[in-house]
Amino acid sequence: MNLIERLNWRYATKRYTNVKVPPEKLQRILEAVQLSASSFGLQPYKVLVIENEELRKKLLPAAYNQPQITEASHILVFAVWENITSEKIDQYIQRIADVRGITVESLADFKGRLASLPARPAEQNLNWAARQTYIALGTGLVAAALEGIDASPMEGFNPAEFDEILNLKEKGLKTVSIMALGYRDAEKDPVSKFKKVRWPKEQLFIHF
Amino acid sequence: MNLIERLNWRYATKRYTNVKVPPEKLQRILEAVQLSASSFGLQPYKVLVIENEELRKKLLPAAYNQPQITEASHILVFAVWENITSEKIDQYIQRIADVRGITVESLADFKGRLASLPARPAEQNLNWAARQTYIALGTGLVAAALEGIDASPMEGFNPAEFDEILNLKEKGLKTVSIMALGYRDAEKDPVSKFKKVRWPKEQLFIHF
Repeated sequence: MNLIERLNWRYATKRYTNVKVPPEKLQRILEAVQLSASSFGLQPYKVLVIENEELRKKLLPAAYNQPQITEASHILVFAVWENITSEKIDQYIQRIADVRGITVESLADFKGRLASLPARPAEQNLNWAARQTYIALGTGLVAAALEGIDASPMEGFNPAEFDEILNLKEKGLKTVSIMALGYRDAEKDPVSKFKKVRWPKEQLFIHF
Repeated sequence: MNLIERLNWRYATKRYTNVKVPPEKLQRILEAVQLSASSFGLQPYKVLVIENEELRKKLLPAAYNQPQITEASHILVFAVWENITSEKIDQYIQRIADVRGITVESLADFKGRLASLPARPAEQNLNWAARQTYIALGTGLVAAALEGIDASPMEGFNPAEFDEILNLKEKGLKTVSIMALGYRDAEKDPVSKFKKVRWPKEQLFIHF
């Protein structure tokens, strides 16, 4: 099945069976998320991969009892860095130097461009970092669809309660979005039969 | 080539050859963008597909003269709705009814949930809509990579100048991000030889 067929096949699944996503498929989806593009390549976020059932039961009320939280095989929680610090920038520059086998000094120009980030208002950086997680979310949704794995992107939850339950404050993180992964329960999920709705091309695209 | 290989192949291309993306490949990339997930499925944005060279020359200084703007085959400009109005919500509900062959009345519950959007502060909706465009950007980047088409996600430009040059104010739109599409000029682009840098899995992912 090609990409377009896969994207037509996928939908924001509401009800899942209890079938587990095989480890090798999960790994490929996570690898796609890891390879996602981001501004400056900084990836200013972490991704929590939650299979633990007890923990998901605790998260359920914080997601308005949406069944995907506990029925899905796994949930991914995208959480941004609460602050973009000079220390984080230094770590990133070191990481580039390590991967490419070059000196930190040779990255001085690039580091200079990143230096503006810690100086920006925290709110601006949170919004900017959150946008980067949506590239990863989009990449993860496509990767799941190509693996034949159902997924649900979710914004309908209480981020502060998620942060609390997952102890994200002490990790310097803030929850932005969720992606549930698993297999659709077509019988229980009426949405699985709905026709996909998108704006028509002539309305969505403007050609110049 | 599989998805992971394709994602490793892609990079934020800085220099392009003058080879054009074939129409059928462009169409599939646009179709993937059209099929992107979004919150409520609302897709609160439009995508400008710019091939016109004169227009791209005008946009060049507003993007700090980054060569991708004029060298790439096409540039996509993701622009959010400046306001999420009740009229837009009504159009969307009508669209769902039309696609699914159901009545608008049967969508009353869903419409009720969407009704909260026009009541939110404009700034909140702009940020929320912008996030949705990043899912489309992520989807478009993957689609391009699978087609063997190079792409550059770009945030480094002056959005107000883009809005002005593209007359977006009168269309009720605001520029958020750009995606250039084309074929890398590996000789002119030193970045094409750089090793891809990502946070290692054990740093990016937290397993529960």
